[in-house]
Amino acid sequence: MEHAGLFITLEGVDGCGKTTQSKLIADALEAAGHEVVRVREPGGARLSEKIRLMVLDPGNTDMCDECELLLYEAARAQNVREVIEPALKRGATVVCDRFYDSTYAYQAAGRRLSADMVRMANQLGSCGLVPDVTLVFDLDPSSAFGRAVQEGVDRLEGEGMEFQRRVRGGYAELAKEDPQRVRTVDASGSVEVVYSRVVAALRDIVLL
Amino acid sequence: MEHAGLFITLEGVDGCGKTTQSKLIADALEAAGHEVVRVREPGGARLSEKIRLMVLDPGNTDMCDECELLLYEAARAQNVREVIEPALKRGATVVCDRFYDSTYAYQAAGRRLSADMVRMANQLGSCGLVPDVTLVFDLDPSSAFGRAVQEGVDRLEGEGMEFQRRVRGGYAELAKEDPQRVRTVDASGSVEVVYSRVVAALRDIVLL
Repeated sequence: MEHAGLFITLEGVDGCGKTTQSKLIADALEAAGHEVVRVREPGGARLSEKIRLMVLDPGNTDMCDECELLLYEAARAQNVREVIEPALKRGATVVCDRFYDSTYAYQAAGRRLSADMVRMANQLGSCGLVPDVTLVFDLDPSSAFGRAVQEGVDRLEGEGMEFQRRVRGGYAELAKEDPQRVRTVDASGSVEVVYSRVVAALRDIVLL
Repeated sequence: MEHAGLFITLEGVDGCGKTTQSKLIADALEAAGHEVVRVREPGGARLSEKIRLMVLDPGNTDMCDECELLLYEAARAQNVREVIEPALKRGATVVCDRFYDSTYAYQAAGRRLSADMVRMANQLGSCGLVPDVTLVFDLDPSSAFGRAVQEGVDRLEGEGMEFQRRVRGGYAELAKEDPQRVRTVDASGSVEVVYSRVVAALRDIVLL
């Protein structure tokens, strides 16, 4: 899919600080005169938010893994077609808090669903859209957990620290596989220090 | 997926008479002492019915094709894991009114979505489950349309006769591709005449 805009996705375990960084990136780009659209997954488009409610409803304990995966992808497809693609076509920069790499890291590496199955699902849900650049905020899960609690994140994956380590490993695989697109940012340290690393990581793509 | 039971799916354009035939098949099998589970798609499991409501809600005019496809598959996956697979594992015969061949015929052949994409989605939604035998009730769309109206089917595809012809063509492709599994039954004539063809088509698999 050809597009005039720039599609940046932010990834990492819960509590890695990516939401704060996405705001800083968006602010800097807007200050430089870019149109910026910030989105988060799952969610975005009206129907994606409806699907989000179904996926995250704690009452749906009967939901099987495949159904959950396909609902995430359905929400993603709607968001791509309705929000992300039109924005990119008119030349905006889209900053997306989680995209399909989350699905790989959490469902394949974390929950141990078949990696082939998750990749196939990601291809469908993304409607073939590939981020121009993806920043993975890398942090030891025990530090991330502390930060997440401080930030008031209350819905941490119930699988515990070992699960978060597998998620981190999933992101590391992706970065190794496609280092040009997937760039690892050390997420330890202050917001300002991490942001300076973000600026460096995006230097060849956009000046912040 | 190995299973003790028998998985029969019934396919065809709206108004082809498959629902009537599925009841006759189920009755005959039950009379012969089999446990029979009849299901219809989309629907079945509790969550699948919830997703069905979302897919079929005429208010959701903003739903993109990929989202619709993935929602159908999410509903299917839940139905397979919660209803169909457990029934097959305990040795029951499952008679399913529509399964993934419908998705191919309607979305790929009918709506002209990418055939590769639909096949991939079907693989995910079916969780790898393949019907033991599929009966395609073949009828000229103009006859089927008349029958559907008689039967009070009010939600016919809005795309009209040309669309229904493409759907019929999609089923014909599937039958050509895998004639051992996908068996075409001439659906013209009385219920009794069509049922005698069903009995013949299933003769090597189960005696009705």
